[in-house]
Parts: sequence; structure tokens; C-alpha cells
Amino acid sequence: MNNRTIILNSRPSGMPVASDFKLITEPMPPIGPGEIWLKTLYVSIDPYLRGKMSGTKSPRFELDAPLSSMIIAEVVESRNKDFSKGEYVKQYLDWKEYQVSNGEGLIKISSTLAPLSTYLGVLGITGLSAYFALLEIGKPQTGETLVVSGAAGAVGSIAGQIGKLMGCRVIGVAGTDEKVELLKTKFGFDDAINYKTTPDMKVAIAKACPNGVDIYFDNVGGAISDAVIANINKYGRIPVCGSISNYNDTTEQISPSLLPLVVYKFLTIQGFLIADYASKFPEGITRLSSWLNEGKITYSETILNGFDRLPEAFIGLFEGRNEGKMIVKV
Amino acid sequence: MNNRTIILNSRPSGMPVASDFKLITEPMPPIGPGEIWLKTLYVSIDPYLRGKMSGTKSPRFELDAPLSSMIIAEVVESRNKDFSKGEYVKQYLDWKEYQVSNGEGLIKISSTLAPLSTYLGVLGITGLSAYFALLEIGKPQTGETLVVSGAAGAVGSIAGQIGKLMGCRVIGVAGTDEKVELLKTKFGFDDAINYKTTPDMKVAIAKACPNGVDIYFDNVGGAISDAVIANINKYGRIPVCGSISNYNDTTEQISPSLLPLVVYKFLTIQGFLIADYASKFPEGITRLSSWLNEGKITYSETILNGFDRLPEAFIGLFEGRNEGKMIVKV
Repeated sequence: MNNRTIILNSRPSGMPVASDFKLITEPMPPIGPGEIWLKTLYVSIDPYLRGKMSGTKSPRFELDAPLSSMIIAEVVESRNKDFSKGEYVKQYLDWKEYQVSNGEGLIKISSTLAPLSTYLGVLGITGLSAYFALLEIGKPQTGETLVVSGAAGAVGSIAGQIGKLMGCRVIGVAGTDEKVELLKTKFGFDDAINYKTTPDMKVAIAKACPNGVDIYFDNVGGAISDAVIANINKYGRIPVCGSISNYNDTTEQISPSLLPLVVYKFLTIQGFLIADYASKFPEGITRLSSWLNEGKITYSETILNGFDRLPEAFIGLFEGRNEGKMIVKV
Repeated sequence: MNNRTIILNSRPSGMPVASDFKLITEPMPPIGPGEIWLKTLYVSIDPYLRGKMSGTKSPRFELDAPLSSMIIAEVVESRNKDFSKGEYVKQYLDWKEYQVSNGEGLIKISSTLAPLSTYLGVLGITGLSAYFALLEIGKPQTGETLVVSGAAGAVGSIAGQIGKLMGCRVIGVAGTDEKVELLKTKFGFDDAINYKTTPDMKVAIAKACPNGVDIYFDNVGGAISDAVIANINKYGRIPVCGSISNYNDTTEQISPSLLPLVVYKFLTIQGFLIADYASKFPEGITRLSSWLNEGKITYSETILNGFDRLPEAFIGLFEGRNEGKMIVKV
């Protein structure tokens, strides 16, 4: 029996393409004393991986070596007393169908409390990113206006819903009419804008936000962000969680200069680093879980089936193919 | 006897010019019960006034009404039991030679502890801005690299010295060789760069900062800031205290997009608002005073003599005529 792996074949230049990835087969790894054998079940597909592929984000992926991301796996054989066959774990693991681990760093999860895939989304780094970036950097106050870009994405859809729970007026920006509809119905946003069919985003944001923008939760960067920031209020806060519109840029982009606005409006712009909040993860998971159980927040997943579809799922992120969390089920 | 006043004659468009100001004379104000008569001694001349003139900063100055800024004045007549003739006070006051006050909000100062003019500079809003913007937003750590723009200015020269006291390597950017020399000798900066004679500031900053830039204390914005930020390290902090290169812009400026960098490097960019730190002013003044008395920090003042030179002094800020704090002595 052979084991399938996906390796980085070439560093993407611009938009990633299928040939940047390569599916190889290798012998099944042997399992030694103290080790366990893991079978990959769900793979988290995230925009930040783009930076690790091109090397702008460290640690970067190496050429001809396996890619990796957060994975939910099942223990299929154990020679380690701390793990039993049939248990589920999550951790940053290689894009392999099967892999061997000594158990170090693996986090056990239960399939009875919530569907396993939610540990990659609303109860995982995705939900925690939305939670801490919004609450700790955005500092939402009742009655304020929050704009979320990439709003139908995994992080954006959760951030907007938390904004509503905090009493904000919440406006989403997304790239299809279907997503816009979903934001207003399923996710309870007050309004949403399709940037692809809106000729003047600056005007559209101004119209949707008659009191200006107090918090801009940014997942995309680029022209959308320029348009939102042009409407920002004094003392505005801008948690920057992603910049997906820029990840495939091969040349430096330009924008209206931000610094004069930072001075005149006393803005805070902060790049979000999930590791800064590690000590508060239990608090975040507890609140997200109870909101989820009380039906106060909901989530979307786009699940592609099949190990060989990992590259397709990743490329799809930049084509806006996902609604909510992009996941590959192996 | 007539009283001289300077009023806003027209809102500056681009670089302020003499005709934006008008010197008028009016009768001396009468003094009533409970009131005091103040004689203006020193007037603080600051870049932020530009925004109040054009109306981008509120509260804006009104046309045909007196301008105002922080002023040191002497009580020359008192019908208020809380003030005696000969006492000195500071407060935001009108650009008038004499004015009447009911005493509300006036802060008494002593000419024996420090020269009166220092209450406009190192022991005033200037010094406190440098202190809190650097310590609270910049969060300097021993061994880090701090770059200060507008480094020979009132705020910049203090910020750089505090950076040295905190154990940072400190690099200044200024606009004349004289200022560069002064930064390295009088103010103890590790290195300084004349941006006007440096063809490639990005390269020059990289050379002066072999370990990259951890903190960028920004007073100027524009191309200088773009060049410094291109060298910023992960987790960099950018307190933005001013954007003097942009204050006279009549069209929107463009820069390399900041948001991708904010994400990749987890940057914090924050517009500094002195009012946020009002409760900590006593702490700041105590530390600045003791550093001053111990000779650990020094300061520069550019003092123009004559009430009628207020417009010239203000315009001079944008021509880089000041070394340190710009003050008019009446």
C-alpha cells in the first residue's frame, strides 16, 4: 500500500497554479515504539499558506517537501500509551494521507461535542482569529459601525456575527450576489455589498454607513480597503487579519497614503497575530462554543472531497470559490 | 493703547502664505470683577495648527477670528483672588498681545524651576508627546533599533533621546547637514541621515539599521516614511505623531500599500492622541524634569522675537527653519 503526499513543486509566482504542486506516492511510514499512526480526515485550507509557499511568511515551505496545515486526523494504530486507536487529534501536520507521530503537540478532540470539521473553523484558529481580532483590536462598542471585508469567508462571517452580538451595525463586503444574500440572511449582517458589481465602493460604503466606519475588519487589502478606510471615523480601529487581494501580487501595489489619515483621525491599524492570544484561547473557545450551541452564531463550510483536490481547494480560495471555511475531506 | 491680534484671513491652500494671516489692532479689552489681564510672553508654534486652519482638524479655526495655541502669559493685573500680578500661567490662548481671562483652566507655572519657554517644549505637550508616543505605542526594548523622522524637531529630538535612555540604537532623519550633525553630537543619536541629499533613502536606512527597524517614530509621513517602513521588522511599532510632509497637500498622495506589510509583519500603526494620556501627565512631567535636571536630555529652541512674526514662524515650520521647538517671544 502506498501513501500519497503533496509537495511544493515550484514557488507560485502570482496566482498559484496546479503545477506548483505535485502529488507523489511513497511507501507507508513504519511505526516504532512510542509512536502512533495518523490517518488524515480533514485538511484546513487557508490563505496564509500562500506566503509560506513564496517564502514571504516564515517558516516557509521548502521545495520538494510536503506542504502542511492544520489537520484533523484519526489514530489508526498506537504504540504510545497516551493515545488509543479511534481517537481524534488536531495539529499542524503534513499533507499526507497517513503519517507517523510521537504524539508530541497533538491536541485530542471529541466528535460528540461538535462536528470534527468545526475544529478547523469556528472552534479552531479561524473562529479564534475572528474573536480576538475583533474584540481585542477592534474593541466594538454598542452602536458603532463595523465593516468586514472578505465577509463571506471563514473568518469574516464569524467576525461579523460577533460584531452583531456586540451591538454593532455590521456591513459586509463580498464578491458574489449569492454571498451578499447569505450575509444578510444566514449571517444576519445589516447590509452587504458586492464589490465586483459596485462601480464606486467609496460611495457605496458611505451610503451603507451613514455614521461612518468605526471598525474595519480587514481580510483583503487592496482597493476595497482603500474605499472603506476613506470612510473611517476618528479613533477608528483596523484589525488586519489578511490581505488576500495582495497575496498573489508580483509587483508592489500602491494606495492612497495612510499615514496622514492615521494622524488626523487617531487610527489604530494592527496586524493580527493569533499567537499573541494563546493564553486566552480557553476563554475564546468557551464563548464561541456557547454561542454556537445557543444558535447565536452559525458557520459555513466548503468541503471538497478527495486528497488529490488539495491544490484545487487552495487555488479556489483566490477565486472566491469558498463560502466560509475551505476544507478538504480525505 | 491698542492691542494687536492675528486672525485667520483665508484658509491656506497648500503651503501657508503670509496673506492667510492678518494682523489687526483693537482696543485694549476692559477688565471686570473676577477677571485678570494677561500679557502674552511666549507662543508655541506647532505643525498641528495647519489642520485647524484648513478645517481637517477640529475644532477648526474660524475665518476672521483670532488664531490660538499654547501660550505662556504673565498676569499684569488681577481682580481675581486666585491670581496675583507677576504670576505666570500657561494655556491655549488667543494670538493677542493682551487678553482678559476669568482664570478658568489657567495653569500656574514657575520661572525658578525651569526657563518659562520649556513649558512649551520639553516640559509641555511637546515633551509629553515624545514621552508617551514612544513609551506607550513604541514600547522600546533594550537593543532594538528606533528610527525617528523629523528628528531635529521639537518632538523628534526628545523622542530620540528617550530612545537612547531606553537602550535603543537610534537613527534620526532630518533635512540639513547642520541638523544631522546636531543629532549626532548634541542629541546623542547613533546615526543620522539628511534625506535631502540622500538619493535612495530605503537603501540608506537599511545601511544605518543592519538589524532592521523595530520602532519608527513618525513625524513626517510621505516618501521618508515609505522608505523607513520598507525596512521595518516583524512586530514593528509605528507611533504616528505627525505627517508634516502632507499637511500642505492639495491632492491625495499615494504610497506603497501598507496593509500587506501590516499582515505579514504583524505591525502596529497608531495615531498618537495626547489626550489619551492626560491621567499620566504628572508621571511624564516628573520623569522628563528629572532627566532634564540630571542632564540626560537636552533640548533646542528656535525663538523668533516679535508678535508680528507669528505667521513667519508658522510658515517656517514647513521650511524646516526650526531646530527643536519653534517659539515666538512677544
